[in-house]
Amino acid sequence: MEYKQAVVLRTDIEMSRGKDVAQACHASLGAYRRAEESMVEEWISQGQKKVVLEVEGLEKLMDLYKRAQREGFPSFIVKDAGETELEPGTKTCIGIGPAPDSNLDKITGELSPV
Amino acid sequence: MEYKQAVVLRTDIEMSRGKDVAQACHASLGAYRRAEESMVEEWISQGQKKVVLEVEGLEKLMDLYKRAQREGFPSFIVKDAGETELEPGTKTCIGIGPAPDSNLDKITGELSPV
Repeated sequence: MEYKQAVVLRTDIEMSRGKDVAQACHASLGAYRRAEESMVEEWISQGQKKVVLEVEGLEKLMDLYKRAQREGFPSFIVKDAGETELEPGTKTCIGIGPAPDSNLDKITGELSPV
Repeated sequence: MEYKQAVVLRTDIEMSRGKDVAQACHASLGAYRRAEESMVEEWISQGQKKVVLEVEGLEKLMDLYKRAQREGFPSFIVKDAGETELEPGTKTCIGIGPAPDSNLDKITGELSPV
């Protein structure tokens, strides 16, 4: 079975490249830490495939996050501390997985790659 | 003691936002997996501080990576599989840490934030 992780970014907030990257890394690591060890090991051994996807706004981000949780995927939502570019608590992105490729596609399959 | 992780990106190669983010997540997670559990736990409990920095080219990236290894920091260099935008094996970025803030500054302190 193939595994992947999705990092899903909002397209409606302006972030610098550094902020963007840091938030995505939080999301990726956060979801990773919630995944089962067996899935993690498979995913790593397969080269830790990642897809970076986009949603248009907060509502869609939250919908996706709730769906991910309902489906039982390890998932993590990033809230910015708001010390630099954004308002405190701004939800910027989520990490989902690692999870089986085809299962994850059920909830992320219609999103566009960044 | 304060801990942080550095993600260091090359500025001399063109990558899409998605590629950029995916590579950085590889670097972050790769270095994280090489860190000692006690440091990881401290870093996470402090809010997993990350800094995103830049270097001008491959030579400087490799110099920094070798220095990180010499100093004993957990570190990870990302080689792109080259299936999409880049030549196979292109070294795109590195993750260093989590490590004590002031120690890490000794090798990354002169780099510019992205």
